[in-house]
Amino acid sequence: MTGTSRDIRTANRYRVLRQIIASSPVSRQELATVTGLSLATVATLVGELLELGLLTDVGFEDSDGGRPRGLVAVAPSRGALIGVDIAETYVHVEIFDLTLTVLAQAAVVLKPGAKRPEHVVAHVAAGIASVVEQSGTEPGQVLGAGISMPGQVDRATGSVVYAANWGWHEVPLLSLLAEHISYPLHLDNPLHACTVAELWFGAARGSSDAVVVNLGTGVGAGIAIGGTLHRGATNSAGEWGHTTLVLDGRLCHCGNRGCVEAYAGAPGIMQQLRDISPASPLLHPDDQTATILALASALEGGDPVAAQVIRETARYLGAAVADLIQLLNPEVIVLSSWVAAALGTPLLDGVRTAVAARTPARPFAAAEIVLSPISSDPVSLGAATFALEGALAAARQNTRRAVRR
Amino acid sequence: MTGTSRDIRTANRYRVLRQIIASSPVSRQELATVTGLSLATVATLVGELLELGLLTDVGFEDSDGGRPRGLVAVAPSRGALIGVDIAETYVHVEIFDLTLTVLAQAAVVLKPGAKRPEHVVAHVAAGIASVVEQSGTEPGQVLGAGISMPGQVDRATGSVVYAANWGWHEVPLLSLLAEHISYPLHLDNPLHACTVAELWFGAARGSSDAVVVNLGTGVGAGIAIGGTLHRGATNSAGEWGHTTLVLDGRLCHCGNRGCVEAYAGAPGIMQQLRDISPASPLLHPDDQTATILALASALEGGDPVAAQVIRETARYLGAAVADLIQLLNPEVIVLSSWVAAALGTPLLDGVRTAVAARTPARPFAAAEIVLSPISSDPVSLGAATFALEGALAAARQNTRRAVRR
Repeated sequence: MTGTSRDIRTANRYRVLRQIIASSPVSRQELATVTGLSLATVATLVGELLELGLLTDVGFEDSDGGRPRGLVAVAPSRGALIGVDIAETYVHVEIFDLTLTVLAQAAVVLKPGAKRPEHVVAHVAAGIASVVEQSGTEPGQVLGAGISMPGQVDRATGSVVYAANWGWHEVPLLSLLAEHISYPLHLDNPLHACTVAELWFGAARGSSDAVVVNLGTGVGAGIAIGGTLHRGATNSAGEWGHTTLVLDGRLCHCGNRGCVEAYAGAPGIMQQLRDISPASPLLHPDDQTATILALASALEGGDPVAAQVIRETARYLGAAVADLIQLLNPEVIVLSSWVAAALGTPLLDGVRTAVAARTPARPFAAAEIVLSPISSDPVSLGAATFALEGALAAARQNTRRAVRR
Repeated sequence: MTGTSRDIRTANRYRVLRQIIASSPVSRQELATVTGLSLATVATLVGELLELGLLTDVGFEDSDGGRPRGLVAVAPSRGALIGVDIAETYVHVEIFDLTLTVLAQAAVVLKPGAKRPEHVVAHVAAGIASVVEQSGTEPGQVLGAGISMPGQVDRATGSVVYAANWGWHEVPLLSLLAEHISYPLHLDNPLHACTVAELWFGAARGSSDAVVVNLGTGVGAGIAIGGTLHRGATNSAGEWGHTTLVLDGRLCHCGNRGCVEAYAGAPGIMQQLRDISPASPLLHPDDQTATILALASALEGGDPVAAQVIRETARYLGAAVADLIQLLNPEVIVLSSWVAAALGTPLLDGVRTAVAARTPARPFAAAEIVLSPISSDPVSLGAATFALEGALAAARQNTRRAVRR
């Protein structure tokens, strides 16, 4: 509870910067109007951002005969942000300017054996060094790096509490990274990273309440309430993949039965294909990606088996998305990650139909269901956004210290 | 989005008043410390509350040699609040002082035929007149009345969009009531009322993220995020009763299959009893209340059939509560309403066991699962709290108008 009013100030700061990124150059008066904050609050926040070098003054605009209004804009080259997407099979690193435009990227495929923390840390450190050099960024300009790591992560300590895929328990990831990297580091999970990416730059921008449904090998549902990521008491909000859709149903790899993930994740979709057509040539038994891509291209060719798999998947996924609408009554549901991108409109249409059949008219009408419009990797984009948020928080702490002195 | 910063100010106001109700008399300095708000913000909000007559100055406290600090306290008799709980079979009206202590109450049983809007409105108006008179409250002292009505309700227009039980469509309930009652009126649903009651006066007080699980004939899950009720885009957040627990499972009265309510509501629990022991003397086929109370007293006597019904119910309910923890990662889950009160500790223990089996250790440890500590009707208490919130909002608008003049 004590964190709440600090959270409110933080949310205000993000709201202002998001708006500046969206509509640079812009006056403080316009920011106040659009965000609903007072002009004094906006002026304070813009002052912090100017001091941090994130913004520059770029002149004045006429205000219908009144005093000319000062305009501010994002100063893209006054700092750089790094986003790191650690996944089961790869490490992906990107460096961004302050408008979150990609300047350079690096990717490493992780060998099946190389999953000890020191291996992963070495790859991340090398990737970061590579993008800083490729982009010609002065190290002093890097405001921070956001690290996305699948599993239960503790943001406060920067450690991985548990990562099922790699059997990591209590790995102090940021401390290990800090031996190689001197930038401020920020840890969170990919679900939260994708949600923040949609809030700042994607389909949830301008929405108060949104859910980002991540469809990959695993599935999750990042929740935004009041325009802010909802993290929960231990940073694990959004673990929708292991909520129950069919009590006593299909065995899930988590050990429970009937989880949403067992039907809507890539392995679940493969199971639908196996159930419908066990000998289908679309099935690549050891390759999820190949199977999903084969389904996607068969769908385009009008293949009836692929269509049936998508109908059945949409039936499961639609029931689970309907649950999110009943429970959270959001303004937008974004289907994100590689499975959603691959299966695209046919899956979206099927989900919409299934949701419509299960949801009262009013909350259904209020909830737009869309595919993610973010074309780059939303995880590294979101991770870089965490670094931006971290830089803002640090700037504010410095300002406070200066005021106290 | 434009409402967000107004929402933040509103949340601050509630936070301050909640704290004053909890720890009257109290200094502005202590309020600032406890709420995390600035002293200036607290002073402004306390000023509003003083002006409204909700608070009085009650002297000074010593501050370790510093300047004595002014103390404020709730002025219980400076205003009254009315809470109305309209249910399927009754109308329950209570009048409260400003500490939300009940001064008087009135209850009317609705006859099966008398469910037309004008009948219900007449009963509500009579109940309100009765409690005002019984309590000896001057009509001018009534700050407002909160009305809780089951169904989809539109707070902005004060109308009932749809009430399934009575077949009401688009009934302008507050307009009809305003022909009889001159107090400010505020409409919401019982799920939201119970949640606000727990936030202000019950097990969710002081929590940031909480879920109030309502177990009655219907079931729902009121959600609080950041210490504030989450209403959603069309005020229907929390419709957990019609989320899917068993896809293609038991038929629910809503027309879908496998809804949580079909297993965890009173009729669902009766079905568990029927499945286990079709000829059980505990079963009162046409009386949910009698059946649940018979189960409760049989449990106390160690009856094995009753124990099995509770185990099976806890298995369903536990899976559904585990879903809430996975998705929202709250600090507290409150089991509320008459079924939870009747089945009490045996149900609570069963739910805890079932949840533990399905939830990762960390979010499970973070989520306290408790029975509601509110001994009075939480719906009318919550409805009266809406009236208090409404009075605060009105006071603020008046203050603003005064400033503009």
